[in-house]
Amino acid sequence: MIKLDDGEGLLLYGDTERNSDLFYATRFHAPDPFFFVCTPHTRRMLIGDLEYDRARAQADVDEVLSQRQYAERAAATLGELDPQQRRFAGVTVMLQELELRVVRVAEDFPVGAADFLRSSGFDLRVVPVPVLPQRALKSAAQVEDIRAALKASEASMDVAVNAIRAAAVDADGQLVLEGEVLTSERVRFLIHRALLEMECNGQHTIVACGEQGCDPHEQGHGPLRERLPIIIDIFPRSATSSYFGDITRTVVKGQATDGLQRQYDAVLEAQLQALASIRAGADGRQIHQSVADLFTRRGFETGEREGRIQGFFHGTGHGLGLDIHEEPSISTRGESLESGHVVTVEPGLYYLDQGGVRIEDVVLVQEDGCTNLTTYPKFLEV
Amino acid sequence: MIKLDDGEGLLLYGDTERNSDLFYATRFHAPDPFFFVCTPHTRRMLIGDLEYDRARAQADVDEVLSQRQYAERAAATLGELDPQQRRFAGVTVMLQELELRVVRVAEDFPVGAADFLRSSGFDLRVVPVPVLPQRALKSAAQVEDIRAALKASEASMDVAVNAIRAAAVDADGQLVLEGEVLTSERVRFLIHRALLEMECNGQHTIVACGEQGCDPHEQGHGPLRERLPIIIDIFPRSATSSYFGDITRTVVKGQATDGLQRQYDAVLEAQLQALASIRAGADGRQIHQSVADLFTRRGFETGEREGRIQGFFHGTGHGLGLDIHEEPSISTRGESLESGHVVTVEPGLYYLDQGGVRIEDVVLVQEDGCTNLTTYPKFLEV
Repeated sequence: MIKLDDGEGLLLYGDTERNSDLFYATRFHAPDPFFFVCTPHTRRMLIGDLEYDRARAQADVDEVLSQRQYAERAAATLGELDPQQRRFAGVTVMLQELELRVVRVAEDFPVGAADFLRSSGFDLRVVPVPVLPQRALKSAAQVEDIRAALKASEASMDVAVNAIRAAAVDADGQLVLEGEVLTSERVRFLIHRALLEMECNGQHTIVACGEQGCDPHEQGHGPLRERLPIIIDIFPRSATSSYFGDITRTVVKGQATDGLQRQYDAVLEAQLQALASIRAGADGRQIHQSVADLFTRRGFETGEREGRIQGFFHGTGHGLGLDIHEEPSISTRGESLESGHVVTVEPGLYYLDQGGVRIEDVVLVQEDGCTNLTTYPKFLEV
Repeated sequence: MIKLDDGEGLLLYGDTERNSDLFYATRFHAPDPFFFVCTPHTRRMLIGDLEYDRARAQADVDEVLSQRQYAERAAATLGELDPQQRRFAGVTVMLQELELRVVRVAEDFPVGAADFLRSSGFDLRVVPVPVLPQRALKSAAQVEDIRAALKASEASMDVAVNAIRAAAVDADGQLVLEGEVLTSERVRFLIHRALLEMECNGQHTIVACGEQGCDPHEQGHGPLRERLPIIIDIFPRSATSSYFGDITRTVVKGQATDGLQRQYDAVLEAQLQALASIRAGADGRQIHQSVADLFTRRGFETGEREGRIQGFFHGTGHGLGLDIHEEPSISTRGESLESGHVVTVEPGLYYLDQGGVRIEDVVLVQEDGCTNLTTYPKFLEV
């Protein structure tokens, strides 16, 4: 937990599908919002009637308190409450019981609740998100949760690759599977369906062919074509553990052009170099710079061309866990890696005339190196 | 939009997957957060580089502004910015340009941004969510979006019902399909897979058998059994329109007991009565009370038994749109219905010894009645 002095508390509010700090702190899956407070001495949850029994059975806290009972206690002092008071009065009683002088809240804590607590006399201090930066250091069990999400990701990658492999090519160079033009949308559906079988939810999965792969926010649409790189980036969340997996492969249907093959080889070489340099104490910024330098040495320039940034213009990697992007970063704002970090390693090169290439694995940082948690093979042509 | 005086603005912040007011205001799908401001004279969006071009092409606003450019303009005045300033300084420039004295924000606006704006001299006033209550009144196009999501919901209901119908029953009374015990989890998977085929995402779908159906937050788990009611409640969100569908049916495998049949008949009678009373000007609270009264007259009591609330203990219906639960409510806090409201009608009865029964349709409120947007038949035994 966050470092707190006597008389200080950390107050979180939200549902655990959106607020990963709250899930990390309580290990309780709840689609509806609740309050959580921790002090140097206790960890308590304030929750509505519908979830009260389940929270008592499942949440990893010292005490579960009933929102209704606490609101009734507030009403006994304050008289009849208006709707806003009914929502927040219970939490003031909980904070008063703990005799907190200072209440720390996350920067995304709702201003309506914050104003109510301040007007009730609490000294609220805003802290940056993530509130619990220790989330970046994964336990053995959390590593296994990520490994399971990766396994599902890899199985769905295989479904996608096999669909592309099984496709024929029509006279216009479009891929055709089972009599229908094979589109990004169809492959994305096949991936999501495979993920569902493994209790993972895919969202915003990228299947982007050719020039589409050069826009990092383009999920891909329309027919897939031969001889153009197809970036497949899958990052599902496990419905059971809430941890994410993340994998990217780039494939081409048929024979790659020499230029595309060189681009792919450079990305793979850069990834292997980055993987070899990851260990506790390594500097994320330096690893990223070495990838950028390698690309430049191989003749792959980065910069604006035709009004668009091209080359290598995103980070080399990011932490992975309950959020798809979390600490630490392997980029221009990179941090020192620690044993127990789980990070992606995903260099890429993007040129409008050639298309995009990205290869991504997930590794566990250790004292003397790293363990690659991804096992899916790397190949370009299918 | 919200009613604003000259010199007043409404400022929203968030991503449009979570913030339905923001999606309603901009019609822009964005997984990453951005700012939106509207005044009596203009509607503007402030967004990062990655989404800037797409926003200009797709967002329904008067102007799309670049977060980077506005932050640079702030830096030109303020000098070097710290990371928090970099995130929020651009929005202060945008608000200053509009010469706003009063800035209204939603109660769930992040306190970190609110503190920054207040310290920059803005008079922030917090308004309740939904910020745009006119969302409750649906246009013809929005009704069609909901109808499409309902159609997908009904198709996936049919998949679930057919699986239960096709199942055999083993010596222990458990349902068996294709050689395996048929569980809530398996039926939920079949539903979600069918929804995916129709570009809808199912979450928290309920397939709850017997006593499990009596807990409204229980999604259902384990083997399904003959002669017990199975509540199937499906409420997916369309991946294309972002509108929700919502349908509930209750079925029993094999012959229902007399008691269960009576319970089902009472719920169906209550639903038909409620449907017949829905029209513009009808009072949601009265409709709900009539449902409760009908249950009492038929001998189905509501109250605590064996330490659990049993009978009819939830609302009769709720508005449906970009949120699964929105205005208006047909319940003890019910409001007057208006032409253009889209509401669920879903009475239910829950007894631990018998199991739960709920039947839910979605209707469009009109001047002289309502149109039922749900077409799936109602039957108990399969």
